[in-house]
Amino acid sequence: MDSTAHWIWYPGDFSIHQGMLQNFAREERGMGWPAYWYIDDCNRNINFSRTYDLDNPTDFTVYARGIGYVDINGKKFRLGETLRCESGKNVITIFVGNPTGLPCVYIDGLVVKSDKGWQASNFVSELPAGNDPLFTSKDQNPNVIEYQKAELNPTKVKEIDNGVLFDFGRAVNGSLKVKLHQIDEVTICYGESRTEALDVDMCYYKQESVDETTHIRKRAFRFVFIPNAKKDNINLIAIHEYIPKQNISDFQTDNPLINKIWNVSTETLNLCSDLFFIDGIKRDRWIWAGDAYQANFINQYSFFNEEVDRRTLLALRGQDNIKQHINTIVDYSMLWVIGVLNHYEMTGDREFLKIVYPKMESMVRYFINQTNKQGFIYGRENDWIFVDWSEIDKDGTVAAEQALLIEVYKTMVTCGSVLNRPIENYQTLHDQLLENFLQHFWNEKKGAFIDSYESGKNHVTRHANIFAILFDLVDDDKKESILKNVLLNDKITRITTPYFKFFEQDALCKMNRQDIVYTTILDYWGGMLANDAVTFWEEYDPTKSGKDMYSMYGDPYGKSLCHAWGASPIYLLGRYFVGLYPTRPGYREFHVEPELDQFNKFHAILPIKNGKVIVDKNGDTLSVLASKGGGTLVLGKNEYALIPNKKLTVSLNHAKVDAG
Amino acid sequence: MDSTAHWIWYPGDFSIHQGMLQNFAREERGMGWPAYWYIDDCNRNINFSRTYDLDNPTDFTVYARGIGYVDINGKKFRLGETLRCESGKNVITIFVGNPTGLPCVYIDGLVVKSDKGWQASNFVSELPAGNDPLFTSKDQNPNVIEYQKAELNPTKVKEIDNGVLFDFGRAVNGSLKVKLHQIDEVTICYGESRTEALDVDMCYYKQESVDETTHIRKRAFRFVFIPNAKKDNINLIAIHEYIPKQNISDFQTDNPLINKIWNVSTETLNLCSDLFFIDGIKRDRWIWAGDAYQANFINQYSFFNEEVDRRTLLALRGQDNIKQHINTIVDYSMLWVIGVLNHYEMTGDREFLKIVYPKMESMVRYFINQTNKQGFIYGRENDWIFVDWSEIDKDGTVAAEQALLIEVYKTMVTCGSVLNRPIENYQTLHDQLLENFLQHFWNEKKGAFIDSYESGKNHVTRHANIFAILFDLVDDDKKESILKNVLLNDKITRITTPYFKFFEQDALCKMNRQDIVYTTILDYWGGMLANDAVTFWEEYDPTKSGKDMYSMYGDPYGKSLCHAWGASPIYLLGRYFVGLYPTRPGYREFHVEPELDQFNKFHAILPIKNGKVIVDKNGDTLSVLASKGGGTLVLGKNEYALIPNKKLTVSLNHAKVDAG
Repeated sequence: MDSTAHWIWYPGDFSIHQGMLQNFAREERGMGWPAYWYIDDCNRNINFSRTYDLDNPTDFTVYARGIGYVDINGKKFRLGETLRCESGKNVITIFVGNPTGLPCVYIDGLVVKSDKGWQASNFVSELPAGNDPLFTSKDQNPNVIEYQKAELNPTKVKEIDNGVLFDFGRAVNGSLKVKLHQIDEVTICYGESRTEALDVDMCYYKQESVDETTHIRKRAFRFVFIPNAKKDNINLIAIHEYIPKQNISDFQTDNPLINKIWNVSTETLNLCSDLFFIDGIKRDRWIWAGDAYQANFINQYSFFNEEVDRRTLLALRGQDNIKQHINTIVDYSMLWVIGVLNHYEMTGDREFLKIVYPKMESMVRYFINQTNKQGFIYGRENDWIFVDWSEIDKDGTVAAEQALLIEVYKTMVTCGSVLNRPIENYQTLHDQLLENFLQHFWNEKKGAFIDSYESGKNHVTRHANIFAILFDLVDDDKKESILKNVLLNDKITRITTPYFKFFEQDALCKMNRQDIVYTTILDYWGGMLANDAVTFWEEYDPTKSGKDMYSMYGDPYGKSLCHAWGASPIYLLGRYFVGLYPTRPGYREFHVEPELDQFNKFHAILPIKNGKVIVDKNGDTLSVLASKGGGTLVLGKNEYALIPNKKLTVSLNHAKVDAG
Repeated sequence: MDSTAHWIWYPGDFSIHQGMLQNFAREERGMGWPAYWYIDDCNRNINFSRTYDLDNPTDFTVYARGIGYVDINGKKFRLGETLRCESGKNVITIFVGNPTGLPCVYIDGLVVKSDKGWQASNFVSELPAGNDPLFTSKDQNPNVIEYQKAELNPTKVKEIDNGVLFDFGRAVNGSLKVKLHQIDEVTICYGESRTEALDVDMCYYKQESVDETTHIRKRAFRFVFIPNAKKDNINLIAIHEYIPKQNISDFQTDNPLINKIWNVSTETLNLCSDLFFIDGIKRDRWIWAGDAYQANFINQYSFFNEEVDRRTLLALRGQDNIKQHINTIVDYSMLWVIGVLNHYEMTGDREFLKIVYPKMESMVRYFINQTNKQGFIYGRENDWIFVDWSEIDKDGTVAAEQALLIEVYKTMVTCGSVLNRPIENYQTLHDQLLENFLQHFWNEKKGAFIDSYESGKNHVTRHANIFAILFDLVDDDKKESILKNVLLNDKITRITTPYFKFFEQDALCKMNRQDIVYTTILDYWGGMLANDAVTFWEEYDPTKSGKDMYSMYGDPYGKSLCHAWGASPIYLLGRYFVGLYPTRPGYREFHVEPELDQFNKFHAILPIKNGKVIVDKNGDTLSVLASKGGGTLVLGKNEYALIPNKKLTVSLNHAKVDAG
């Protein structure tokens, strides 16, 4: 039992409230741009309750963010005053309403305190109270996020275009400190790229009439251009804001380019994950379920930050009552459910699963309500059947959506089993849907899944086929068929978005084509580095150059240059090259199955739950060390148990073991 | 079409947001006391849309409370700037998010403006935008209620108990202006009664360490006591806050006591109805559906304020998704539905009915989900089957609840018909339930309805029997039987709460027992006046005196001395003595059916929709004037059409008509 006192609230409310603020944080050319979907807020009116059986009298004080009172055994007392419980049975209920923010309390006392054990109720449902490791002191306010601040000097300052260009040498997410000399006020033009900053008319962020006292909004940038000024007129310091995260991962090989790709990926994910996994720091700054799903896989092999993942899952799902699909997208709602399973497999966090499982169940009921006789899920009015920005035949029900729904049912079977809930219904739904999916969407002639069977066009795209591999929906023969007929078939329209490129690379690795994936990483991500990237972009098209590189969605600077999914090499390298993955939830058991043919010298440290794994390769000598038990080194058909903190050394030629 | 520009919002949101603040406004002895039920807030993220076909270009500006932008034909523009629509078709969408308050906009322009015609969407449902007559200027903020303020000097100041007692001579709801001389700070003890103010330890409101600069919270009081001070030390001015309301009603008879009862009733309702009908100004300050139901009947015969009623109905119902019964009370949810019908019959406001009807339907579905095979509604876990504070046999399903449900179905038939919605199902449910109700709950031996048929106790209370008369659930024979066996039967436990006394007096009048009711009014309400009341109380027990008069709910000053339902004489006198009531919605037709035997001289002005009715009696001469058509004077079996603004004079002896 954790006995640390935290600020506590109705479970999910902190994430839902802060998630709302996050989805309101987008800015474009002087306009606020709230996300274009229904947005939940936290509960306004909460009570917290707990019964203590006390051997001795004890004092405590309740601090609250909101209005209310403390009820001890039916008598009312004030917040913020020292209160006493006499020995014996004490029923304490704390009532807190907050009309504008998160209602929450901190209970300060030796015995009676806000550690684990309090129940929270919104007067409809009662659940174990929620908390967050960020808020453990009574002087804090969970409505105020305490960002750490780093002052950064520009790395280059240059007079150009009748103004001054500041290059901070890295992506900054924060404010600016401005000192002016012999000039009253200036205009600040921001850019993720130098080109953008210099484009005074069209840059995404701009603030005019700025003097030394002006409040400068938190923005994401690397460059700042001050038009109509000289170097001597102005000093700029960037104030980068961040929530510190641990990162024990390390990645050093004999290929400097892949090392840099790893490090820039880490920087990219780090920037895109303060409280939540957001898509990008300049744009949209929103929490998207598809982006977050991928970010969590990347997180697993770098920061291993469980909190960001938990917050993101809770924020995405919102309050119990479902009003529309997450981000309005049917496939994103399904990825949310599947993402909970990944979180559980990564963390083994049964307590979180318990909180979130009812929300999974209601979400799946929501899906079932939009299935037809075959069990196929279809889009309703205002539902967005997205899959990907690609020409998919969306006539009738769509293959990729069914593949996700099959995995959703499997997720419910797995998670329900963990919590000893009835899962027969999900198993039945799974089996039926899988059967119908294979029967209707598998096209023997094409040796692949088609998008739609209702249209009669028999059109093949990569998407459903990729999901079929990733979710093991087909046998090995069909997988090979998909590899040949789809993934390695240039006649099938290529994946153009980095979003789906993530799934495609994942599938290729799963089919042991690390060779192809390694080349892709060096070309695609290396290409961005060759274009001066300090973080990875939303999208990279090697055929574009100059100003064209930065345009997207019809906006010359619409492209986000620090985008979470840009960090996917971390996942691909960790999961399929180092070959680390849990085989029981929370890495109670795990495999290390290296595939390091591309490297002569290789050193990596990767996180696991409550520990780490170190993998070294030098020529044909491989050594693996895990800081905790349950690990197995897998080399082809050979398996070697890993003893905690004992380095296991193997000759890759002879698969000879050496415990050192 | 109303062409006044208003601040607009998602319909219901203003009332729901302000209703939340109202339900957070309770204070007791230095503690905030949020209402103990689930509390909804407004939507956070809204868009407003409208298409204009313009003959000429036109300019407009959008003012918003929140962040967002304006989309004109797919292009984004800033809030607060002059924007132009060219001639031709223009699709305008305004996006506004507000993380802490009501998202709303005011559109200022000659053609493009926020008058009727805008749609509001929360990204799930789109409905005609809501507004309120209080907010018609771009400089306003619908998140800030602009109370008018009146400075009031105390009527008496007296040194007593080593302190100073201020009597403001009336109930004040507001703050205080404090001037101190030769004293640094004081303690303010408030009282609705003199006794309460002088009770420094136990008075309900108290503020310590007050100097001239201290913010003094808005509170309800008539008396203020400053302990440990002399008259010369302190000057107090009360700042009464209120939202002005029109009141054309007037009531002058040859009985000064009943005149005073009318006026004090008016004062009482006025104080309890700023934005909403609340129960009382000192305590609870909450919006209760039962209290509001009655307040609306009283309002109909005094202020005829449609806005307070609309706001109250919207605030009570909250957002679409129903999480629990209104105020957690099953009967209150049903009174809410029935209250909408009364609002419609009073106002004829079809537009409001259209907005609220889907919320009635979902509420009724919620009821149906908790009915048994006989169609009887039962209480579920956490549901409160209240009916009244009385010893009712609540074993199994309860008669009074079924009576309400029958009236609910009738309401749906009536309101659904107005909107041309299918009502057959409600009619069937109504007929079945009525039949089962009579079969199971009517006890022929007792000549009355019993509380519960499942318990076998055959216990009779007044409550279901009163509803049966009020809602015309039984024929005249049964009504007479109820009158004799229940209402006029001293062996049946008396109604002790003013809440149900309202319904009882209503039923007695309906059975033409104005004689009894008149005596009751003079005794009960006159009794409060004899005890120095300046407003009517939550409850009055003539057997109590001194300090005991003020205690309730186990609290020495728990009783509210300015309580909305205390104003019920207005309704009883207006509805059953003047005899005014609409016979078609919105008084398109109405009756005046006077029963003025208690008066020799009588003069009353009462409001009707868009008009008024004046009734005078002098000896046996009665005259009636209505300012608009549709009226009928009913005297026994005689009916006389009322011609607009023509006084109709009748001799009560001969029923002789004289148009004057």
